[in-house]
Amino acid sequence: MPDFRIESTRGQLVESVHRVSAAVVDAGGRLVASAGDPDLVTYWRSCAKPFQAYPMVADGAADRFGLGSEELALACSSHSSEPAHLAVAQRMLDRIGCTEDDLACGPHAPLAPAVAEQVARNGTVLTPRWSNCSGKHAGMLALARHHGWPTAGYERAGHPVQVRILAEVARWSGAAGDAVALAVDGCTAACFGLPLRAMALAYARFATDDDASLGRLRGAMGAHPELVAGSGRFDTEVIRASDGRILTKIGAEGVHCACILPSGLGLAIKAEDGDLRSAPAAMAAALQAMLRAVPVPGLDAVAPVLERFARSPIRNTRSEPTGEFRAAGALRFPA
Amino acid sequence: MPDFRIESTRGQLVESVHRVSAAVVDAGGRLVASAGDPDLVTYWRSCAKPFQAYPMVADGAADRFGLGSEELALACSSHSSEPAHLAVAQRMLDRIGCTEDDLACGPHAPLAPAVAEQVARNGTVLTPRWSNCSGKHAGMLALARHHGWPTAGYERAGHPVQVRILAEVARWSGAAGDAVALAVDGCTAACFGLPLRAMALAYARFATDDDASLGRLRGAMGAHPELVAGSGRFDTEVIRASDGRILTKIGAEGVHCACILPSGLGLAIKAEDGDLRSAPAAMAAALQAMLRAVPVPGLDAVAPVLERFARSPIRNTRSEPTGEFRAAGALRFPA
Repeated sequence: MPDFRIESTRGQLVESVHRVSAAVVDAGGRLVASAGDPDLVTYWRSCAKPFQAYPMVADGAADRFGLGSEELALACSSHSSEPAHLAVAQRMLDRIGCTEDDLACGPHAPLAPAVAEQVARNGTVLTPRWSNCSGKHAGMLALARHHGWPTAGYERAGHPVQVRILAEVARWSGAAGDAVALAVDGCTAACFGLPLRAMALAYARFATDDDASLGRLRGAMGAHPELVAGSGRFDTEVIRASDGRILTKIGAEGVHCACILPSGLGLAIKAEDGDLRSAPAAMAAALQAMLRAVPVPGLDAVAPVLERFARSPIRNTRSEPTGEFRAAGALRFPA
Repeated sequence: MPDFRIESTRGQLVESVHRVSAAVVDAGGRLVASAGDPDLVTYWRSCAKPFQAYPMVADGAADRFGLGSEELALACSSHSSEPAHLAVAQRMLDRIGCTEDDLACGPHAPLAPAVAEQVARNGTVLTPRWSNCSGKHAGMLALARHHGWPTAGYERAGHPVQVRILAEVARWSGAAGDAVALAVDGCTAACFGLPLRAMALAYARFATDDDASLGRLRGAMGAHPELVAGSGRFDTEVIRASDGRILTKIGAEGVHCACILPSGLGLAIKAEDGDLRSAPAAMAAALQAMLRAVPVPGLDAVAPVLERFARSPIRNTRSEPTGEFRAAGALRFPA
């Protein structure tokens, strides 16, 4: 079977190929399945968000400031800048006594095309709250406030907020802290380079560990799929269709992580070229493969969602189908 | 030297990689340099436009309808839907006695972000003239009118317009007509699948052949760089900076072709994943390599343009540089 990949076809030819690496790991760190190079080191980007939110919960900041399930979900989110997302972000800022001026994240065109169009049409001035990462940043501010650390520079590697987060990234991924590559994310916060296998391990632990703070984040993402991404987006649709039993989280540059709670598996995907559309397609196909290999009863509503993302028509400017965008090849299962 | 590719970096890591295949060929069909698989078969997409426009000139349609240098340039163009582009497209339709209703191409968001933003802000209704391919389509209509062929269905494989064009695609590329894969392009017109090496040969001939009709198209692209693409875009900048001595033409899905007139070389590039930003970066680096291997005096103004596209900073949402988007590796030169 050829390597796992995403193809776009036109007529009889495969026109473009997106190569994919993947690691599927159980909570003991065993590699259950893989594709390409499961030890590929790349940045975790927004897939790290549950672990970046963890200290806010574990250290007591969430309880102290009255940040509940919705706020926790938004802290783990790459949201679409829909009204509900902006409202929860504002509520987080209000509760911790901060304003948008304290957010280090710069604004950008909303991730959801429909919202982006509306914003352009209305000439809306985009402020930091509109950043898809505003929940993560508000959570970091909450952590700084809670510990009495300066809020200025909270996003930079070396600030106590980031030192605390790095410790949790290292702990849950199993990567030694000094082996984690540090860089600056699109939203200005520190981001973390580590092997796909380590990312997958963190997600397997996210699925299975009985740590109370991790459980609250897991529950928050499961309870509020619409806050984790946005209308029509992969993460929202899969979490909703699975009733929170599959949690998925996209990152920039083709990184995507997920966990299947009932089977205790963590998945990490990287589209080599960083293609944002290939990552959910590859994750859909990887989840299909894992649900075939380790069946989980009661996930019937997920199947059509995965199929829709794993294989979709390509249409021209007259909406005629000209080809397919589809997952191809297969995960490798070690003997 | 590792394979020719486009990388995006973040901090100390290469975060994403776009693999590139390339063929550099002289007018005799000799492979001068290559990368990846120079025999890769993919669609020529909009890089075919000069050859799709050729019958309109050679058969006398351009002269009959008074289509001059600007109209010829627009027929070879993937334009940005700027006012000048729309005006020339309208003039072509007027001169051949057609209207926008005759254009088969569907509208789409303008290729230039600034134009797309303006259109969204103004709530402009996009019509077929706004398609980046409207010049090509108007040229096909001119050919149909000239020969007395029905205009309806002019875009479909099998229509006399497309049969005529396929013959020229086969002739200039050296690919046998029945070896050319046919499919439907994004703009609804027939598109052509052939090896990169054949695309490069067609461009080498475009640079060197003394065929009068080909020479008029070459001259038109060289004289009107702003009509071939649009403000700030690679093709426009390179053609302008070289005074028409380098002609470059982007296609969809990571295909890019070019020719260096003084050295008689044709280049064809494909970014494996279809990345639209990688194609000009790879073309810039390939042109740099070819100008080093076969120096051409008097092209000093081109160097900074190529350097700007071959290597550019990646910035986050606060405009801080976080890495580089850059060509890496090198073309292979056969001994």
